[in-house]
Amino acid sequence: MNTKSNKPTLKENKGIAQPQIVSKTAISNIKKKRKSPLSSEKLIKGILEGNITALSQAITLVESKNSRHLKKANTILKACLPHANQSIRIGITGVPGVGKSTFIEAFGMHLTALNKKVAVLAVDPSSSITRGSILGDKTRMEDLVKNKSAFIRPSASGNSLGGVARKTRETIILCEAAGFDTIVIETVGVGQSETAVHSMVDFFLLLKLAGAGDELQGIKRGIIEMADTIAINKADGDNLKRAKLAKVEFNRALHLYPEKSSNWQPKVVICSAINNEGVAALWAIIEDYFSKTSKNNYFEEKRKAQNKYWLLQTIEEQLKSDFFNSKKIKKELLKQMQLIEGNKTTPFAAAEYLLGLK
Amino acid sequence: MNTKSNKPTLKENKGIAQPQIVSKTAISNIKKKRKSPLSSEKLIKGILEGNITALSQAITLVESKNSRHLKKANTILKACLPHANQSIRIGITGVPGVGKSTFIEAFGMHLTALNKKVAVLAVDPSSSITRGSILGDKTRMEDLVKNKSAFIRPSASGNSLGGVARKTRETIILCEAAGFDTIVIETVGVGQSETAVHSMVDFFLLLKLAGAGDELQGIKRGIIEMADTIAINKADGDNLKRAKLAKVEFNRALHLYPEKSSNWQPKVVICSAINNEGVAALWAIIEDYFSKTSKNNYFEEKRKAQNKYWLLQTIEEQLKSDFFNSKKIKKELLKQMQLIEGNKTTPFAAAEYLLGLK
Repeated sequence: MNTKSNKPTLKENKGIAQPQIVSKTAISNIKKKRKSPLSSEKLIKGILEGNITALSQAITLVESKNSRHLKKANTILKACLPHANQSIRIGITGVPGVGKSTFIEAFGMHLTALNKKVAVLAVDPSSSITRGSILGDKTRMEDLVKNKSAFIRPSASGNSLGGVARKTRETIILCEAAGFDTIVIETVGVGQSETAVHSMVDFFLLLKLAGAGDELQGIKRGIIEMADTIAINKADGDNLKRAKLAKVEFNRALHLYPEKSSNWQPKVVICSAINNEGVAALWAIIEDYFSKTSKNNYFEEKRKAQNKYWLLQTIEEQLKSDFFNSKKIKKELLKQMQLIEGNKTTPFAAAEYLLGLK
Repeated sequence: MNTKSNKPTLKENKGIAQPQIVSKTAISNIKKKRKSPLSSEKLIKGILEGNITALSQAITLVESKNSRHLKKANTILKACLPHANQSIRIGITGVPGVGKSTFIEAFGMHLTALNKKVAVLAVDPSSSITRGSILGDKTRMEDLVKNKSAFIRPSASGNSLGGVARKTRETIILCEAAGFDTIVIETVGVGQSETAVHSMVDFFLLLKLAGAGDELQGIKRGIIEMADTIAINKADGDNLKRAKLAKVEFNRALHLYPEKSSNWQPKVVICSAINNEGVAALWAIIEDYFSKTSKNNYFEEKRKAQNKYWLLQTIEEQLKSDFFNSKKIKKELLKQMQLIEGNKTTPFAAAEYLLGLK
């Protein structure tokens, strides 16, 4: 019996399932591939002129894993640097369901109405797997997406929070050089991502729901401690009374924390982003924060401290990855782990041995 | 005028203040210096025979900063390793004033009465500065100090928690080889020291006072989450009622945490160490924990995981210290930090440059 005739090969099968026509996507892909990439000089010029296409292309270079792209990205970043740093950077976090997209939409629209240029970025290390980044779902920010004064960019993808955060950190520089004066960085609050966002923003906003019962999580992970303001969202309808009560409770909780080095006493507000209520008041608080911390020099000092933090952080990550990704070390580490399993060596003797192989 | 005759030199002055007699301390120091140190072989033999002098000398080698001593320490540790691992390791923490010394005294006396051999160690990275380690003040453990079945050793001194913890981690091995079957590791709870202790013990006990108001701290720093049992101490006299109330509250709080991978539901007990009340009951809980986690294999798995953790931890620390302690890097890091201050480079470009110098 000829099995071949009975069982079509995978190739043949594919042929049946996918008739040989060229799809629209394929044409668009070919066009994209044919378009020669802009030179570093052109990209820099474009960014400084506020050209969104140039900005997007440069961000793609920053996010690339290709070393040639990264070299180009570094050239562009260096040229953009003198034009950066002229913005307010605001971090926004909150558990899923708190209404982050609706809030950012209302917040962004309020700011653009005040003639601000708003860039919305995200740090979401999970997005590469789940593609669940809220910013990926731009349909939730219908008006802001169409707004000429706003730029929305989903989270870079990557395996490590460090990598994703670093890319966002560099994207901030590009956006600022392109004239965006208000940078909003959203995080969905996976793992340590709030800490990463906190280390790259001037002002940290925590969105909360009344009675959501995630207070313990917030305290445990130090998120409440990081907040410069807590906004209790969805303070409307039946929720309004509970939101007002929660405001009192959060205010009490915040007073248990030691005073911040910014001399800023964190505020608690209620808002209803969907009804556009409380958003203007919140912006007034952020302006007040900016004015106060600029005067007492905290703003500038914090940015410098953040840069130094990122320098050390990047070095430490690289040292670890250089060591543990070496083939030799990988092999020997496995062996030492087995010796540890068998209680045949101490962790310290094993470490000494492995470091000796460097 | 001859100033010399008016102002006696320091030497002369000293001569007056300290007549040329040899003090008892000086004689004892000379004797100590003259006593030649025991060889590795003799120390190993001594430790395995349960000789306290040999044990103490070996611990001093482990704690030394002298590389020759450390080499000797490693030889001894390696020989002791097959005889270690036969103990229960218990971590005890609590804020100052909670009665840790009194508790450890009562707890240790209870265990030695049950024919246990108890070693009490400490992780206190601040001890080198403040010399404030509770174990340093052995007078608070009068009976236990005199007890032949107990061995008390104050915290190693050192600049970094990592270093202090590592030395304690190795001292555990020596104590176990010397026949101690119950290792108590105390920490005064400075900074991250609870996490370090948690990563080297089987059972973690948190001592609390009723209504001390440090609950938020405990939650924030993840200490309550680490606890296998919370003991509310000083539950006597006027305090008894409040302690019972606190027990109910802590029990409620503990239920907010997800189940532990040990399948162990953390307990809350009240005790009065000074009246020796509740100590036996607490030991019964620890025995129950030991029995349950031995059966479900968690005990063994946790120890292996801890060893692997310490392997990686030691390597990471060493990589950082090798890099940042290099003279060249120190100098160039300073320069790059200045460029960052002046906003002339990005943290990432600076990191790349510094790593290139390696």
